[in-house]
Amino acid sequence: MLPIQISKRARLTPASPIRRLAGLARQAKQNGKKVYHLNIGQPDVHTPVEFFAGIKEYDSQVVEYETSEGNHLLREAWSNYMERSLGIAVPPQSFLITTGASEALIFTFMITCDPGDEILIFDPTYANYIGFAAISGVDLIPVMTTIENGFGLPPLEQIQSQLTSRTRAILACNPNNPTGTVYSKEEIAGLLDLCNRNNIFLVVDEAYREFVYDGLTPYSVLELDPSNERIIVVDSLSKRFSLCGARIGALITPNQRVLSTGLSIAQARLAAPTIDQWAAAYMLNHISDEYSKVTTKEYEERRDRLFSRLSKIPGVEAFKPRGAFYTVARLPVAHAEDFAKFLLNDFDDNGETVFVAPASGFYQTKERGNDEIRLASVLSSQHLERAMEILEGALWEYKEIVGQ
Amino acid sequence: MLPIQISKRARLTPASPIRRLAGLARQAKQNGKKVYHLNIGQPDVHTPVEFFAGIKEYDSQVVEYETSEGNHLLREAWSNYMERSLGIAVPPQSFLITTGASEALIFTFMITCDPGDEILIFDPTYANYIGFAAISGVDLIPVMTTIENGFGLPPLEQIQSQLTSRTRAILACNPNNPTGTVYSKEEIAGLLDLCNRNNIFLVVDEAYREFVYDGLTPYSVLELDPSNERIIVVDSLSKRFSLCGARIGALITPNQRVLSTGLSIAQARLAAPTIDQWAAAYMLNHISDEYSKVTTKEYEERRDRLFSRLSKIPGVEAFKPRGAFYTVARLPVAHAEDFAKFLLNDFDDNGETVFVAPASGFYQTKERGNDEIRLASVLSSQHLERAMEILEGALWEYKEIVGQ
Repeated sequence: MLPIQISKRARLTPASPIRRLAGLARQAKQNGKKVYHLNIGQPDVHTPVEFFAGIKEYDSQVVEYETSEGNHLLREAWSNYMERSLGIAVPPQSFLITTGASEALIFTFMITCDPGDEILIFDPTYANYIGFAAISGVDLIPVMTTIENGFGLPPLEQIQSQLTSRTRAILACNPNNPTGTVYSKEEIAGLLDLCNRNNIFLVVDEAYREFVYDGLTPYSVLELDPSNERIIVVDSLSKRFSLCGARIGALITPNQRVLSTGLSIAQARLAAPTIDQWAAAYMLNHISDEYSKVTTKEYEERRDRLFSRLSKIPGVEAFKPRGAFYTVARLPVAHAEDFAKFLLNDFDDNGETVFVAPASGFYQTKERGNDEIRLASVLSSQHLERAMEILEGALWEYKEIVGQ
Repeated sequence: MLPIQISKRARLTPASPIRRLAGLARQAKQNGKKVYHLNIGQPDVHTPVEFFAGIKEYDSQVVEYETSEGNHLLREAWSNYMERSLGIAVPPQSFLITTGASEALIFTFMITCDPGDEILIFDPTYANYIGFAAISGVDLIPVMTTIENGFGLPPLEQIQSQLTSRTRAILACNPNNPTGTVYSKEEIAGLLDLCNRNNIFLVVDEAYREFVYDGLTPYSVLELDPSNERIIVVDSLSKRFSLCGARIGALITPNQRVLSTGLSIAQARLAAPTIDQWAAAYMLNHISDEYSKVTTKEYEERRDRLFSRLSKIPGVEAFKPRGAFYTVARLPVAHAEDFAKFLLNDFDDNGETVFVAPASGFYQTKERGNDEIRLASVLSSQHLERAMEILEGALWEYKEIVGQ
């Protein structure tokens, strides 16, 4: 019989560059190697005890569906958290709770675009945007940013020149994954102005909002114009509270039609997980602001240690990020993906190796980023330094083998 | 300024017929009414204690991402559960764990179809299939089934005649939501044969697999041909174990390409909830088969009590379902949706009323089901009988008001 056909969109959905080498890492561990995971933004910082206390407080005998828009206690708690942390009033009704920021992004692609419509992104970009675009039939239009320029935004005129009649939104991740770049309030205001003039959405993925360093103050695009119906914020508790596995995100917007059509889509998938929402609400209502401060300080120190050691490796071009916990570095190799595989398959330093994400998967533009990797500084400073030591050793050995 | 445009697909995604009157129900409760919820398949049966024990057993200090394909303990436990309950060996590698069956269905729509492709469904159908079709750009082709015929499958020739060059799958929910109809093994084998001959997928949503009555034996389409790459099973723990809020579903198939492209899509959304998966695995490994038996018996008794009382209401046409916990009934009213609103807004019997789902939202065919409702027998037999008493009284009063 003929093999049965898979859809084109499924075939075009790329495997995650963060996760697609996971099999090799598993194999390396089975072979007895210790693997430092710098490939994925999975923090080792402890989840707040208040979350686990919330889990214990859940005492229903039936794990029922939550409402499609999300637990009302969580929406209120999140609204209060934004007031507390940013000084802005965003009413609970503006929150649509989602299964991770991932689902908020999928909803946003579905709500803002029909198939064939376009969203402008900044290249390199969060790899999963490329996956969301594939399943939703959206064309991502890459606006180039470069390591030489600290991955900062290009001039507005250049961005404007890439808009077409099919452009429905500009999507920015701020602080940025994968680059760690923090866009200034002025840069974001410029983007908002551009979106206003062209009547398109400005979507800002603020999953890393609190993680800004060098004395920078966290802010949200919502501060600029709280009732602007062109603004959609994608938010998440995953990184902020080391809660990746709880899958709690939110789509936040003052736009009533986005919220109401988003609710219809949300109703089709019924609800986000009940107990996690309950515990997250409990956590937000009981946690002290200290957690965020301590965590941010910890990540800043890690960033310092990672960058300082990384930038000493001969031939490596690195950029010192001011936010999130990633950085994109250029290596003295032609194909960073081959090098990443070499690290897992063929190299060890005293039984230890490093798992890095090839950066090419973070580029929408073909043939870019082939010599770059993304590093996540989600391990202790000591482990990060050790990982950089391993990376340097591997580069020397790799150079000898491939003769570069 | 011009209002900003929402995508056509978002505007076309219908609000859930199960949930869209939820605001009126809230209002009724605020006005002091007691509302019997027959609108939604939210069981009141207790979640197994083994699930809560699993939640307590989770002792990681960081709630990390699960793997994209799902917790390996859960995949093994689910595979063992199928072996135990059905006597078939489905390897853990054939399971892709999803955030509820909802997500498994969304993945299935994305994997089997490109926009403009068609899936055959049986009308009336699970309402959320209509929502999934809207967001994925899939055209649902309704094959009519009727209350007079117990919502059974029409002859295969009739189904065959509705296939086109764009048909990619036949999707059947068995036991059926919203009708409670159980398709026989012969009927499903007929569908599989049709799919084989036309090289299209047979997707069977088996969320209610265990809930069959009158001495029927639960079975899965996978028993018919375990290695047939045209079979995709959508499964769920939600109803079987009163775990709706845990959001644990699975896409199960022997088709490696469906699994690998499904994994790429799954990677884009990262993972399903960690703690719920962990607890579900623990539950499946520790629960006795008694839970399922007792629960099925309870639902059978409820079905009996609901049907017996419902069929005595003058003018009501009802069908006695043999599975799941729904039934579609025809009422002596022109617009069941107006009547459903009347129940919540304008009627009470000693301060009590009933929330039913208008059936029109379960029909892909326009103008069908306008005089029908879907009832979920998810409350105790006593409450179900009381709800039917209220329904009868409301029908009398409504008749007087609208003069039918």
